[in-house]
Amino acid sequence: MSDPIRFYFDFASPYGYFASLEVESLGERTGRAIRWMPIMIGSAFKASGNLPLVAQPLKGAYSRHDWERSARRLGAPYRFPDPFPVAALPTSRAYWWLADRDTDLAKAYARAVFHAFFAENRAISEPAVAAEIGNGLGIDAAALSAAIQDPVWKARLRDETEAAIAEGVFGSPFFLVDGEGFWGADRLPQVEEWVTRGGW
Amino acid sequence: MSDPIRFYFDFASPYGYFASLEVESLGERTGRAIRWMPIMIGSAFKASGNLPLVAQPLKGAYSRHDWERSARRLGAPYRFPDPFPVAALPTSRAYWWLADRDTDLAKAYARAVFHAFFAENRAISEPAVAAEIGNGLGIDAAALSAAIQDPVWKARLRDETEAAIAEGVFGSPFFLVDGEGFWGADRLPQVEEWVTRGGW
Repeated sequence: MSDPIRFYFDFASPYGYFASLEVESLGERTGRAIRWMPIMIGSAFKASGNLPLVAQPLKGAYSRHDWERSARRLGAPYRFPDPFPVAALPTSRAYWWLADRDTDLAKAYARAVFHAFFAENRAISEPAVAAEIGNGLGIDAAALSAAIQDPVWKARLRDETEAAIAEGVFGSPFFLVDGEGFWGADRLPQVEEWVTRGGW
Repeated sequence: MSDPIRFYFDFASPYGYFASLEVESLGERTGRAIRWMPIMIGSAFKASGNLPLVAQPLKGAYSRHDWERSARRLGAPYRFPDPFPVAALPTSRAYWWLADRDTDLAKAYARAVFHAFFAENRAISEPAVAAEIGNGLGIDAAALSAAIQDPVWKARLRDETEAAIAEGVFGSPFFLVDGEGFWGADRLPQVEEWVTRGGW
């Protein structure tokens, strides 16, 4: 029962960003490690027939409003990025490269990527920006840039995304705890309840 | 600030059913009346480009599992209805006919409709079943059956649905409180927080 909670997200997902601000304190309260798992949600959308929220009538307008409201509620810096959404390939590959070397540093990098996109409107789909963000954390920019172009890390991101879809992941954020899936930032309380009660 | 909280739902929506079991106690805690507003969610799906959850790959399997889990968590009687979903036209028209005469009786009828569909697998899309459910609450079956066929109540359901879509409603359940929309049964805690804090 001490397996990590898996936290699936896409770096371009506002609800993924909001969940990233709360998930580690949940881990501390429950004594569970949190495994951060960035994926390409566009691939999951293809598998599930979904569209990005902003592309959907009614739901798009609701979502934009709800993101502002969610940010205010958390006291989180936020402005709607432009362009949006983006394919965060370089930063996602860089995360997995880092995660195999230093999970804490990889999480710090993930937090910095979310902040760069949702607070500073930086182009996280650009390899140069992926390297700059790493540089701010003392990560060697040349090594990170090389990893982004390396077929090994391209394949890793693809494999993690496919494995997530095979587990039933279709949105961001998505949590897997002891085989039980919970979709959405607003399900964090139920994730915590599931862990503390041992299910129901 | 004492306007009712509007609770939009479709009688064939499992999350609408679960919300119906919790929304009145929220109303009591916050001192707000709850206005129950059944609509035809299929029309909202057309407007928003959505599909029923069970028709969506990945999300459909998740939803079926989540409905069972949500029912267990609430201790609510539940079995997945067959067929599903259905167009609950007769029961929805009967609700609006009742709501103009006796709001408490209309809510009792709505609760009985949800129970009939999600606990007893009864065909709530059948006019005869709509009348039987009313009969169990002492509602005149002939009058209810006449209302279901009356163009006035057919139009009323259509108008309520169109008005809901115009307000931005695209799913079930959906809550409107002081002009602020919240989508989903798992947003009830935020609806309550919004009311008690007066927004944020």
